[in-house]
Amino acid sequence: MNKTRLEAFSDGVLAIIITIMVLEIKVPHGHEFADLKPLIPKFLSYIISFIYVGIYWNNHHYLLHGLSKVNGKILWANMHLLFWLSLIPVATGWMGEHNFEQASMTLYGVVLFLSAIAYFILQRLIIINEGENSVLAKAIGSDFKGITSTILYVVGIVSSFYTEWISGVAYLAVALLWLIPDKRIEKVFNSKD
Amino acid sequence: MNKTRLEAFSDGVLAIIITIMVLEIKVPHGHEFADLKPLIPKFLSYIISFIYVGIYWNNHHYLLHGLSKVNGKILWANMHLLFWLSLIPVATGWMGEHNFEQASMTLYGVVLFLSAIAYFILQRLIIINEGENSVLAKAIGSDFKGITSTILYVVGIVSSFYTEWISGVAYLAVALLWLIPDKRIEKVFNSKD
Amino acid sequence: MNKTRLEAFSDGVLAIIITIMVLEIKVPHGHEFADLKPLIPKFLSYIISFIYVGIYWNNHHYLLHGLSKVNGKILWANMHLLFWLSLIPVATGWMGEHNFEQASMTLYGVVLFLSAIAYFILQRLIIINEGENSVLAKAIGSDFKGITSTILYVVGIVSSFYTEWISGVAYLAVALLWLIPDKRIEKVFNSKD
Amino acid sequence: MNKTRLEAFSDGVLAIIITIMVLEIKVPHGHEFADLKPLIPKFLSYIISFIYVGIYWNNHHYLLHGLSKVNGKILWANMHLLFWLSLIPVATGWMGEHNFEQASMTLYGVVLFLSAIAYFILQRLIIINEGENSVLAKAIGSDFKGITSTILYVVGIVSSFYTEWISGVAYLAVALLWLIPDKRIEKVFNSKD
Repeated sequence: MNKTRLEAFSDGVLAIIITIMVLEIKVPHGHEFADLKPLIPKFLSYIISFIYVGIYWNNHHYLLHGLSKVNGKILWANMHLLFWLSLIPVATGWMGEHNFEQASMTLYGVVLFLSAIAYFILQRLIIINEGENSVLAKAIGSDFKGITSTILYVVGIVSSFYTEWISGVAYLAVALLWLIPDKRIEKVFNSKD
Repeated sequence: MNKTRLEAFSDGVLAIIITIMVLEIKVPHGHEFADLKPLIPKFLSYIISFIYVGIYWNNHHYLLHGLSKVNGKILWANMHLLFWLSLIPVATGWMGEHNFEQASMTLYGVVLFLSAIAYFILQRLIIINEGENSVLAKAIGSDFKGITSTILYVVGIVSSFYTEWISGVAYLAVALLWLIPDKRIEKVFNSKD
Repeated sequence: MNKTRLEAFSDGVLAIIITIMVLEIKVPHGHEFADLKPLIPKFLSYIISFIYVGIYWNNHHYLLHGLSKVNGKILWANMHLLFWLSLIPVATGWMGEHNFEQASMTLYGVVLFLSAIAYFILQRLIIINEGENSVLAKAIGSDFKGITSTILYVVGIVSSFYTEWISGVAYLAVALLWLIPDKRIEKVFNSKD
Repeated sequence: MNKTRLEAFSDGVLAIIITIMVLEIKVPHGHEFADLKPLIPKFLSYIISFIYVGIYWNNHHYLLHGLSKVNGKILWANMHLLFWLSLIPVATGWMGEHNFEQASMTLYGVVLFLSAIAYFILQRLIIINEGENSVLAKAIGSDFKGITSTILYVVGIVSSFYTEWISGVAYLAVALLWLIPDKRIEKVFNSKD
């Protein structure tokens, strides 16, 4: 099994996911600036989801960079990750259409949480494949960011039932956590190259 | 004719097929959890179709891995396969919108059946091209999975006229049959590599 | 300028064009077989357009195979071709929705005609680039198929104003003309390889 | 970080952006030529946006050609550029649906302006990475075209509040400015190759 085609397929799916989200921002019917107002929550939810998919693309890239051989399990773990990520546009659209209301914040958190779990499974399988002493395994280490993100998603989901803005802060915090480039992995691989 | 570009084009089409299916899950108009309820059959039909397209992508990958030279016939047999696969989103959407009702179960089975036939034709042409003694021909052998799948599709189509859930079981059975990684092909190619 | 990225971009656009056409086949609202009936003209128009885009992808592949160096003119001639091809889904949708009625047959012919002109321009620029004695120039020769197709499009467009089915025959004839693999180019390149 | 995958992902996103714009040209309900009339402004706005995205793809290609090593900042600057470009279809659709009316002309200009800023940031980061004496830095030089474009966008945005057609002229002028192949960069790289 060739890694290149797995990367190409994942890139294709991620490129489509990130781009079809924009289709949720429907062209307004009116022709004045005021008609753009209902698009603001949609636009904001688009920004955050764009960043999320960008982060996943970025991390996915590093993860597969450290993979030497694809097997059936890894292939399906990758599909599983793409599956949950493919639901981000729907969750984003719902959140944007209903101005970050309670249920949509919960759903968004659930999709992000399940994506994170799927990513974790893929990461585990790749580490098992490469060995606990591999460069990748060392680079990931205790996976501080991954664990923190998962906790923040749970915080976001639970708090969405009480105070929506706390969910929002939790989801934004995860995005910021990852936006800062992952020095650990970059450093280890660079020293290897 | 270059195999790389055939793979790249097929990957692109399959990535788009698997992702536009999610567009059938329309953002619900209400803003409560209850408004997600009508999405459940759509979601379930999305899961199964996602798995199906994933299986085709996976098998297609192995099949083309064993191909040494593309000719016009193989190119069009590949297009023919992509054609039927491209109808999966419509069939999935219909099935999801009408809660797996009779006619939609029949249509879904027909699309899957014709995709299987198209795959079989492509496989035959590649084997003819590579020779009956090629690694690929040996790996496919009696094509137990392919034949079983085709029979199960027919069972699913016929039973959809009487009892829908038997169709559902048949389609699920095919998905499970293929989800288990194809040890035969993997083994043969690995021993070759 | 790298040819690979031009091919990759064109492949991406063609893969999307061929796949978004299926979005014109909207999921029927009813749940019986009879509800599929209005989809028949859409389905037929989808088949023919799928074949057309497939032919363009195929020919485009051969054409760029014979190209050694991309320049700005070729790049924009390629964009120009993609532009007209990108209108095929709209023309297909209109033709399918109105059961191959007069105006839609004219429009379809016009889009195909302009695509053919764009292809011809791209071909000329590549031949100029490669030289009249290049393998590609010899392979294309008098461009019998290209000229015949253009004439048939004109026949189709003109006859659409009087008898729609003659247009249909003309467009189908072009598709069949190209479906038969282009022995000329294949032969020349194979002898070169 | 591998440049190839960054290019592939960007190509995918740009190919999708350029193609989904055509989805704004909805299939007309009537079946006569007159029913195509309301599509004319949509078609014109599609042409100009198609050219714009084509220009960005072209320039992006040259820019990344001159890049030797991807880092986190460049990756996110690239995502930032793709973000603004992904809004072109919505802005195009609005402009087309409302016949180039005032607010839509302003919005279109703003999206183009922000895309230009994002491109400028990406260019700066790459030059910093490659060094002020790099081939790329010399090729870009005083960035006459980039600066002129930005000024023209501002002119277009401001004039959209008074006379829409001046905006139109400004946006068209930018497109023409870039359509002429960039001799500077091409020359420098060609002399290097």
